[in-house]
Amino acid sequence: MIDYRSDNTGRAAPEILEALVRANHDTALGYGADEWTAALQRRFSELFETAVRVFPVATGTAANALSLAALGPSWGIVYCSEAAHINTAEANAAGFFGGGIKLAPVGGEDGRISADRLAEALAGIAPGQLHRGQPSAVSVTQASDLGTVYSLAEVHAIAEVAKARGLRVHMDGARFANALARLGCTPAEASWRAGIDIMSFGATKNGGALCDAIVVFAPELADGLAVQLRRAGQVWSKMRFASAQLIAYVENGLWLEMARASNSVATRIAVGLTALPSARLLAPVEANEIFLELPSAVMDGLEADGFQFYRRSATLARFVCRFDATETEADALLTSLRQHLPPAAAARAAE
Amino acid sequence: MIDYRSDNTGRAAPEILEALVRANHDTALGYGADEWTAALQRRFSELFETAVRVFPVATGTAANALSLAALGPSWGIVYCSEAAHINTAEANAAGFFGGGIKLAPVGGEDGRISADRLAEALAGIAPGQLHRGQPSAVSVTQASDLGTVYSLAEVHAIAEVAKARGLRVHMDGARFANALARLGCTPAEASWRAGIDIMSFGATKNGGALCDAIVVFAPELADGLAVQLRRAGQVWSKMRFASAQLIAYVENGLWLEMARASNSVATRIAVGLTALPSARLLAPVEANEIFLELPSAVMDGLEADGFQFYRRSATLARFVCRFDATETEADALLTSLRQHLPPAAAARAAE
Amino acid sequence: MIDYRSDNTGRAAPEILEALVRANHDTALGYGADEWTAALQRRFSELFETAVRVFPVATGTAANALSLAALGPSWGIVYCSEAAHINTAEANAAGFFGGGIKLAPVGGEDGRISADRLAEALAGIAPGQLHRGQPSAVSVTQASDLGTVYSLAEVHAIAEVAKARGLRVHMDGARFANALARLGCTPAEASWRAGIDIMSFGATKNGGALCDAIVVFAPELADGLAVQLRRAGQVWSKMRFASAQLIAYVENGLWLEMARASNSVATRIAVGLTALPSARLLAPVEANEIFLELPSAVMDGLEADGFQFYRRSATLARFVCRFDATETEADALLTSLRQHLPPAAAARAAE
Amino acid sequence: MIDYRSDNTGRAAPEILEALVRANHDTALGYGADEWTAALQRRFSELFETAVRVFPVATGTAANALSLAALGPSWGIVYCSEAAHINTAEANAAGFFGGGIKLAPVGGEDGRISADRLAEALAGIAPGQLHRGQPSAVSVTQASDLGTVYSLAEVHAIAEVAKARGLRVHMDGARFANALARLGCTPAEASWRAGIDIMSFGATKNGGALCDAIVVFAPELADGLAVQLRRAGQVWSKMRFASAQLIAYVENGLWLEMARASNSVATRIAVGLTALPSARLLAPVEANEIFLELPSAVMDGLEADGFQFYRRSATLARFVCRFDATETEADALLTSLRQHLPPAAAARAAE
Repeated sequence: MIDYRSDNTGRAAPEILEALVRANHDTALGYGADEWTAALQRRFSELFETAVRVFPVATGTAANALSLAALGPSWGIVYCSEAAHINTAEANAAGFFGGGIKLAPVGGEDGRISADRLAEALAGIAPGQLHRGQPSAVSVTQASDLGTVYSLAEVHAIAEVAKARGLRVHMDGARFANALARLGCTPAEASWRAGIDIMSFGATKNGGALCDAIVVFAPELADGLAVQLRRAGQVWSKMRFASAQLIAYVENGLWLEMARASNSVATRIAVGLTALPSARLLAPVEANEIFLELPSAVMDGLEADGFQFYRRSATLARFVCRFDATETEADALLTSLRQHLPPAAAARAAE
Repeated sequence: MIDYRSDNTGRAAPEILEALVRANHDTALGYGADEWTAALQRRFSELFETAVRVFPVATGTAANALSLAALGPSWGIVYCSEAAHINTAEANAAGFFGGGIKLAPVGGEDGRISADRLAEALAGIAPGQLHRGQPSAVSVTQASDLGTVYSLAEVHAIAEVAKARGLRVHMDGARFANALARLGCTPAEASWRAGIDIMSFGATKNGGALCDAIVVFAPELADGLAVQLRRAGQVWSKMRFASAQLIAYVENGLWLEMARASNSVATRIAVGLTALPSARLLAPVEANEIFLELPSAVMDGLEADGFQFYRRSATLARFVCRFDATETEADALLTSLRQHLPPAAAARAAE
Repeated sequence: MIDYRSDNTGRAAPEILEALVRANHDTALGYGADEWTAALQRRFSELFETAVRVFPVATGTAANALSLAALGPSWGIVYCSEAAHINTAEANAAGFFGGGIKLAPVGGEDGRISADRLAEALAGIAPGQLHRGQPSAVSVTQASDLGTVYSLAEVHAIAEVAKARGLRVHMDGARFANALARLGCTPAEASWRAGIDIMSFGATKNGGALCDAIVVFAPELADGLAVQLRRAGQVWSKMRFASAQLIAYVENGLWLEMARASNSVATRIAVGLTALPSARLLAPVEANEIFLELPSAVMDGLEADGFQFYRRSATLARFVCRFDATETEADALLTSLRQHLPPAAAARAAE
Repeated sequence: MIDYRSDNTGRAAPEILEALVRANHDTALGYGADEWTAALQRRFSELFETAVRVFPVATGTAANALSLAALGPSWGIVYCSEAAHINTAEANAAGFFGGGIKLAPVGGEDGRISADRLAEALAGIAPGQLHRGQPSAVSVTQASDLGTVYSLAEVHAIAEVAKARGLRVHMDGARFANALARLGCTPAEASWRAGIDIMSFGATKNGGALCDAIVVFAPELADGLAVQLRRAGQVWSKMRFASAQLIAYVENGLWLEMARASNSVATRIAVGLTALPSARLLAPVEANEIFLELPSAVMDGLEADGFQFYRRSATLARFVCRFDATETEADALLTSLRQHLPPAAAARAAE
């Protein structure tokens, strides 16, 4: 079996678990008042070239929902892509933690929202009108939920529209490392320098084990968030075991190395697909996910050949490359696709 | 330094971290659809001698608040001890996750609530009256927040009063292992057979690392709770790493062995204190916590001697024994206390 | 000025205010334990031909949001029309009172949802899956938010689909009287006999003053809702003044008489529009609202002629007929439209 | 029957209902965009000698809970008297609307909290500690829930302690008129000049009918509150009928006249009680409520004589004087008490 189901079906990087085990000595104050968590603050502040506050949390859902809850009042409207994980896959955690905030989908291409469409949406709600709530924040998913990556200019443009209206900007960085690996820029450029106020910093999908983090760039948000996290049951009493994982995750560029590895395999598959004219990508492959329109019979064939992946619909398959995916596996997938896909001429004729 | 600050300042049992590391192979479906989590269900069902649903969660606060939220409507009143962790130390997580449920303190001795006082409190609110909300649940902390342990008869009596009014019963078992070690009964006897519907099953304070669990005895509560946990950001996508810890925690009686060890050191200190007539315990030492009334100057002396502990007030110190606390450390504490405590005669005179 | 802006810009029926004033004698127990509120229960139970519980509330938003909160868990998904008032105009009150419930738009024609589209939406969420929450209720707006009216068969069909999946059914009856007047059936047929569990019973838009009501058909919902309403600040201590209004509203068929009057004027306008080939209705006129596609210049002309209405967009105008709207006003509007609308030929050419 | 049960069992002042009826002409924009609501803003700004924002709401519970929710984050602690209505009689509406805020009782005399006890409570929670939440607001009930009235100096002192810690101050003015009548000061002196940021402005208990109000002194709170109120179902679409009531309530000093009347009858009873040595008041009678410790048999006797009142416990009776209570009724109560109360000597002997 070759598993392309998700990047969260995979193992953790051994370096991360080793760091967790290494932290198991002596006693340390609970709830983050330990030396590992202090080191985490320093390490991420260096990484992001500014003083940040880092809060380890158990899951990306917690990171997203608690970040959004921190960005505005409970009657706020948070704009995001229709395809955003916060909108489709987190059981309305944002609405819950935010005390009733409402997610409002904004259009755009390939899983991204566009600054223009955001501006239109905001123009539709006059300041002071009461009936629909008031805009409070924007959330961008980087890399996006369709496997594309916002350019820095796109993030800048969205943030500019948002801030002109007094809105805060959140980045769902569940696959931030994959985006960074694609963009080739610094973490600072991809986040606060582009206008991000708070980020869900993913690790789990990219070789992590049991924690992600919230990284706060707007310092006035941090103290309140700290209490909110405590109340949300997201502050481990033995926090050192989480902080140690996150330090190991970024140490010596491990995170980017893993992201480059998974991106690279995804790209190899995408390049291979160009030789298969009947294969249609839903969106460009810019990170580690591939959304491929496939006849149902082709999906059956792939499964019969031992490939695991998600059927997003009767004609849409998602393949995700993990940090430990291999080129051999990629080539095997392409071979199988080649066998099952109809020739291009037949595909055209079928339309 | 000898650390008596808390049982969450300590290390994790190596067996637990080893199990976590051992789970790091192959791929596995996310969000609990993996073989470790399936094994956890079986293992705990054996342990509790009934079919239970077990949900690993990041923290005891999450376990408590989400359990209580599952037990009744958002306008419910949840009865608990004034000293209960849910009432004093979880930033009103129960009120938050429960959508506004209110905690109502009930009296009793030594950190426990009493069935009679509960009955009185319930009698004070007529069914159908609207102004104060309606009773929905009771929470007992076992071992209690003052280091005492409810007898099985006491738990039975509380559950009986509760159920006569249609209330559900929650057990905050952050130190359930310590209570079991004291009671010498089975997990089943101490929980569902005594009337418990849902339990916060603690591991962190007793040698765990990054997870506790909710154990559901009333099956009709489980499906809804599963969605609620997903929404609460408490369902790890790589759940295997949590489930593996919890399996290791109870494997071969590790949990009870650790609890007996910490209880035993606490008892050794308590016994030693009987020879110090001026030492006053706030409550009997029945688990791994010692609440000792001490003059402030004595606390200063202990700290100067290298002991760490919490000052609960100017005259109350708390000492907690971890699973890896030693008899040597206990004897050192007694020696230091002996030096700093005034002779009994002087203590009496000072009153 | 002739006001077509909304049915809530209008006066109240004098009979309703007179009843309120008549209730101002003697003392009466507070919070609904008075004789007027008891009479209200009896009167509505007769009206609906079954024992109902009636709770007066201040606004339709309160009626809707608290009804929906009563129908399912806080992680529930509530299906409704994209155009539903609960989705577009109540500042996400349902999400707030429901503790994070999510509204999911369902397609259909002319502001109604269709049973088939509902069935498709439900089929997209497997029982037990966690990531999107779980379906809990359906809300139908009767008359709909585009001025159309569900047939009894349509409501039946929706309720059948809902109940096959265990979902409850809510009716937003802000304009229930207008729908009844159109359908010519009994209140029972249009509500619980068609599968409705709970209804927001509107009065304000149809000649009421300061209260609407929740009518509960599923008796097991009522006791909890009563506490929830108290907590929501929706239980007047001098409830008699609200109950007296609601009794007067239905006494001697006043409510239906008013609804027939406003429907009739709207129909007169709609009929008149058929003689204006360039006038396009967004949806059939079946109650008291008219959604008319108009060039912006025509809207300017109408305003210059003294007509007030809402511009829903640059090319969509809404006209609402109040219970005291007159035929003369209707004819005046038609005359003005006739003057400003381009001839049909010109309209066709402009396409 | 002579009714001393509550000030909400009574009639409304005819002037208020007449104003409501007078507002029933012409059309007016909904949701507060009408001329009556505009006049209300002006009228109350004159009354309070500063620019205030006034929001009519259906009930005092809504006024209190939504005010408190506006004063701080959802993890905030709100300090109030143990006896406060928000703590004992509103079904935890504050916890609900506040998203989980916790009420923390503060001690003091006769239903009031004291500045010193508040300072002690605040000193017990260090800024930045997470486990208990963080202080966010103080609520004082004026007149208090035991029928006493804070002096201006007392309110000032509490506000000073609060503001030194960054806390906001709310006044539950359900009986504000009664307090003002007692204090003989201006509304401004009793509110914002004494440090109040937001007030629940009661009318219902003092001759009102269907609305109270929130008066906002801290202007930065108003815009958000407006949206929150809309979402809370507390913004009537035909707001004019509420605003007209509130204008009439204060017009020509009606509110103070009614409060003086009810206070005066209560005082008459209290003075009469001084001649009955065995009658014990729970607290001084400073407004319109009398809390009287009475043997159960005496309460039986009063009821047999036709008096209605609430039994707060087996030995505590509450008598409330409405604005239309009469001296004759007061004298009748004293006569009945005189008959049923044991002579002073017997009372002393019984102790």
